[in-house]
Amino acid sequence: MSTLADNAPRMAGAGDWIDAALAPRSVAIVGASDNPEKIGGRPIKYMLQHGYPGRILPINPGRDRVQGIAAWHSLDAVDGPIDMLVVCVAGEAAVQAVRDGARLGVRVCVVISSGFAETGEPGRQAQAHMKAAAAAAGMRLLGPNTQGLANFSNGALATFATLLGEVPPADGPVAIISQSGAMSMVPYAHLRAEGIGVRYSVATGNECDLNVADFTEAVLRDPEVRLILLYMESLPAPATLARAAALARARQVPVLALKAGVSPQGLRAAQSHTGAIATEDKALDAWFGQHGILRVPDARSLVMGAQLLLRCGHLPGNRLAILSNSGAACVTGADAAERHGLQVPPLPAETRARIDAVLPGFASSLNPIDLTAALLSNNHLFGQVLPILASARACDALFITLPMSGKGYDTEQFARDAAAFTAGTGLPVVVSCPLAASRRIFAQAGLATFEHDEDALAALGQLARLSGLRETALRLAQPAPDAPDAPAPRAAGLLSEADSLEQIEAIGIRTVPWRLCLDAASMGSALASLPGPWAVKACSAQIPHKSEYGLVHLGIADEQRARALFPVLRQEVVGMGKSFDGVIVASMVRPRREFMIGARWDSQFGCIVIVGDGGKYVEAMPDVATLVYPFDQAHAEQCLRALRVAALFDGVRGESPLPVQELAHAATRLGAWLHAQQGAVASVDINPLIAGPDGRLYAADALVEI
Amino acid sequence: MSTLADNAPRMAGAGDWIDAALAPRSVAIVGASDNPEKIGGRPIKYMLQHGYPGRILPINPGRDRVQGIAAWHSLDAVDGPIDMLVVCVAGEAAVQAVRDGARLGVRVCVVISSGFAETGEPGRQAQAHMKAAAAAAGMRLLGPNTQGLANFSNGALATFATLLGEVPPADGPVAIISQSGAMSMVPYAHLRAEGIGVRYSVATGNECDLNVADFTEAVLRDPEVRLILLYMESLPAPATLARAAALARARQVPVLALKAGVSPQGLRAAQSHTGAIATEDKALDAWFGQHGILRVPDARSLVMGAQLLLRCGHLPGNRLAILSNSGAACVTGADAAERHGLQVPPLPAETRARIDAVLPGFASSLNPIDLTAALLSNNHLFGQVLPILASARACDALFITLPMSGKGYDTEQFARDAAAFTAGTGLPVVVSCPLAASRRIFAQAGLATFEHDEDALAALGQLARLSGLRETALRLAQPAPDAPDAPAPRAAGLLSEADSLEQIEAIGIRTVPWRLCLDAASMGSALASLPGPWAVKACSAQIPHKSEYGLVHLGIADEQRARALFPVLRQEVVGMGKSFDGVIVASMVRPRREFMIGARWDSQFGCIVIVGDGGKYVEAMPDVATLVYPFDQAHAEQCLRALRVAALFDGVRGESPLPVQELAHAATRLGAWLHAQQGAVASVDINPLIAGPDGRLYAADALVEI
Repeated sequence: MSTLADNAPRMAGAGDWIDAALAPRSVAIVGASDNPEKIGGRPIKYMLQHGYPGRILPINPGRDRVQGIAAWHSLDAVDGPIDMLVVCVAGEAAVQAVRDGARLGVRVCVVISSGFAETGEPGRQAQAHMKAAAAAAGMRLLGPNTQGLANFSNGALATFATLLGEVPPADGPVAIISQSGAMSMVPYAHLRAEGIGVRYSVATGNECDLNVADFTEAVLRDPEVRLILLYMESLPAPATLARAAALARARQVPVLALKAGVSPQGLRAAQSHTGAIATEDKALDAWFGQHGILRVPDARSLVMGAQLLLRCGHLPGNRLAILSNSGAACVTGADAAERHGLQVPPLPAETRARIDAVLPGFASSLNPIDLTAALLSNNHLFGQVLPILASARACDALFITLPMSGKGYDTEQFARDAAAFTAGTGLPVVVSCPLAASRRIFAQAGLATFEHDEDALAALGQLARLSGLRETALRLAQPAPDAPDAPAPRAAGLLSEADSLEQIEAIGIRTVPWRLCLDAASMGSALASLPGPWAVKACSAQIPHKSEYGLVHLGIADEQRARALFPVLRQEVVGMGKSFDGVIVASMVRPRREFMIGARWDSQFGCIVIVGDGGKYVEAMPDVATLVYPFDQAHAEQCLRALRVAALFDGVRGESPLPVQELAHAATRLGAWLHAQQGAVASVDINPLIAGPDGRLYAADALVEI
Repeated sequence: MSTLADNAPRMAGAGDWIDAALAPRSVAIVGASDNPEKIGGRPIKYMLQHGYPGRILPINPGRDRVQGIAAWHSLDAVDGPIDMLVVCVAGEAAVQAVRDGARLGVRVCVVISSGFAETGEPGRQAQAHMKAAAAAAGMRLLGPNTQGLANFSNGALATFATLLGEVPPADGPVAIISQSGAMSMVPYAHLRAEGIGVRYSVATGNECDLNVADFTEAVLRDPEVRLILLYMESLPAPATLARAAALARARQVPVLALKAGVSPQGLRAAQSHTGAIATEDKALDAWFGQHGILRVPDARSLVMGAQLLLRCGHLPGNRLAILSNSGAACVTGADAAERHGLQVPPLPAETRARIDAVLPGFASSLNPIDLTAALLSNNHLFGQVLPILASARACDALFITLPMSGKGYDTEQFARDAAAFTAGTGLPVVVSCPLAASRRIFAQAGLATFEHDEDALAALGQLARLSGLRETALRLAQPAPDAPDAPAPRAAGLLSEADSLEQIEAIGIRTVPWRLCLDAASMGSALASLPGPWAVKACSAQIPHKSEYGLVHLGIADEQRARALFPVLRQEVVGMGKSFDGVIVASMVRPRREFMIGARWDSQFGCIVIVGDGGKYVEAMPDVATLVYPFDQAHAEQCLRALRVAALFDGVRGESPLPVQELAHAATRLGAWLHAQQGAVASVDINPLIAGPDGRLYAADALVEI
């Protein structure tokens, strides 16, 4: 059936499995049912209904024909190659079908059957057997426990999705890749209701082999895919998804992701994890953002902006012009724009003068532009105002909101004028109107239309955020700066404070002036060489949280008192049965503000850095940014400037600025170094990192875990 | 036309104008047009179309008939009483029409014409003339610059709203009261698209007399009004709206308000206002909440929950049960519930056991309840599970989300079972389903249905918040506790720190131990009587911000040094040319945390109190609650517990709790006292209010402005 190869999306260098999964020339169904409503009957019904041109090979030991087409009694009986095998039988029979397929050279096997890893230990074992059989033969496996996958461009519908029977498919530019069967079809239903076509809907189920990331990469080889929607409850393969995200950025294909399971239970578990102020969820947030993937909070947000994102893949900036025939819509529109991160800057004086010459006296040209009810009597207002706006180049997008429309308004003319604006400038125009009939007229002119202003501006906000993320991601994808050439740590486990401080100094992070005294005699020269007052602290690699045991004395101004602490601290450490590594004497630096940096190695994300406000309440009232390597100093500073404490960075009430660039630099150095250790270093915590009176940063305490 | 009096809503004790505005027996239109699309023609067209049974009296000097009915050449020519006069002529003619109406005993005059206060000084004067003429005769005035008002229960449609011609009206339980014409009809259009009837749509325009609050009170006299939606850009009459809100609470009629104009410009202006950390917008937020009015951020949120709010006016709590046939919908539903302030508590073990006995083994009964695909093969699952849930009394609302539905599912049976649940328990059931056909089946069974889970849970969140606000508002509406019997302040302008501290002590707020020394000699006894170290500060009513001039010396531990400061401080104050009121010596209390309270008198809201985290960054990084009098200690504490700093209230890392109840008590006392002064006291600022090591609060500085 060469027609399929011809029809298949052109996939330069695509893996063997991708063709077989998205454009199979033959599909065999084990457990094929003559009943088109049964799970083993639906894929056959759908492929017959929607004109799949390849071979449909129902496998049923008891029937010669299934749903009117020839059937085979076994896989072995089939008289030709099988690209895709769909397994709809349960338990051991499913495992056997997978083995048979592997033996017969099937390229992709879709195990729809459930009852495997999701049900307990026996199921897990059966799933492992399937996976092993497939892997040994080089056959790729989708599922088990999947609803299946669908390519609506060629009718290859290896799915039992009930919604397909309710909502007619239409080919289009959207791909939906989901770990859940339901969520592979819910966005489909909403998009189809809006008249938007969907090309791929893939449910990955238990992901024993192929996962969401694999299919994201796969569908991106299809040049007609222009929007990708992801649903996931876990991030199975960050490296693969990162590769896919890079491809999407290069092609300006927006990728939106809904990651579910942000439950308080999950958060609490992550926070109780060592040092984990950055919960996994915040790391995921950072990871998505740094790869240019827009994370959305709910399924509605996943589809809400689709028609705009399909029309416009990128905004050069976030300056919005608002045009309305209602003053109230101007006010609420400006409010909503701000909520969604869009600016509504006043227009240049010259532009305003030109618009004022067209508008009646009581209208406003400030931006929002209030055309007032004058639009009712002058159908050419759009055509007069929009060219002025276009030539001013003072906005990156135009929002038209017409709460009043219908009879008496020449909506066709407005739509033509708005379409001319977008054609002439290349800038997106988004139209909101409560009347469906008016919306239709604008939509027919090729413009994105919305029933609610809020949705229109939320969609524009998504587009602006996606554009910003893409630019950051493109920059971060450049080769990272070399990691600090710091020595690899020698010890294992937790380092002592002295070793930790030396380590971070080697990375290039300034510490407060300090000395380690191994005996009482050396206290004198240490105190003499360091400006007081002093912090005097026991040093022991076995006691990471010294202050909880009263082993930290702060603000000691008297040298005799400082010297007297040596035997006391040694006695206390020895009394605790811990190794005594000496006494640290350090100059106290008066903190203008205490910051913190924590970096840790994560098996999933690699190097995660958190940086922000420090002090003792950093867990109770966190105000920190989470970053995932690679990132650069500019990105770290940008994230720091989004924190609450950023209000202090440039100095308030006559204070001098805080060293935010140095803080971003330190976080970047530490991240690069910890990344270079590739898991050899588990974590580094620096808290407090003191902004001193001289405008510099000083680490006052550090803890490195190897 | 007595039919109108019969048809009119029963309004016990309603004001004269309300009958005339909402159920006029006769409507005269000055500027009546034979063209039904002109502004002077539309009200006549609409009233004729929609069966207004009263007298329609077109006034047109040049015509005997208008739109097919008898017309009059002047108001004076009309042969009977005029309840309502609609003015559609411009400028001076409008003013004259108002004068004529007032002279002829018209009860309510609707001035649709624009070109008055919204356009500048001449318009303002013309508007003042209209207002004066109306007031002198006891005629009430709506507008000018209004789209008009509509009562869809009796066809009294004194409006030129274009949308009426596009979207057919239907009487119903919703009243829309808006300062904007567009926003009086946008919610109408959305509600009608959902099949929800609207009874009143009122646009108040320039509000030279009748305003949004007046009409809110008016429509509440109609017992069939069950939901009120407000749009406003200002709060014209807080006292009237408070009265209306009380009536709405008593009748369990939800009131939702969209206040627009939350622009950065407005915020900046408010913040630059004296002491105004509490921006007007935050005060408005507090005011709405304390009166049980739910503020919403956008027009979509105004209508989004209507069908649920009309079915259920109150939730007894915020425990939600979630039921689905999709595991993913269970996860996203739990996420969304948390976002909208709803709890999804695990079901009691006994209830789970009973549900487990019904469900297949791999389903989940934890809550969310995942029925899995088993729902496809067992159409009675709803009927089996819901009665168990009903008898458990373990939830306050039920959310059913069915991403998969349609053919193969017995949706009619599910809908009957769900309706039986709500009938048996009185608890609301909200259904979400992407398939319109399935939604219709649930809607026909009387249940609230949504296309998106997110909207369903947002609507439930609105209902839960409204219920919470109502309970607080009912409690706060009780007679407030007596204000502290503190002496009225004697001076005018800013009080000195010593007078300010005495004042707040009289109100019942503890201060740090302090003494005012009028001469150097008394320093000795002051220092002897107060534990050191000390703060030594110049006292001058003319220098409110002493520390900015170096007139505050903190942490003085040496008595000689403290004594030596007296002549220095006196010299500095005198050198600034300011009055010298002495030197304050105060014990330093080591702060565990610094709080602040500010109270001020606002011409619109009365007494506004802000309370929260203190210190020098309270403006740069505000973490404060805004309260409007009356409020009680419990409400103040509840608001404090919503702050960021609340994470510290119960003690972290082994620390003892912070005195949050004492803080709430102090805010309540101060608020009651400042309220009792009725504007005689402009403001009181207490910052810092130190939580000391002994677990008590100590005001360390205060500034009272008379």
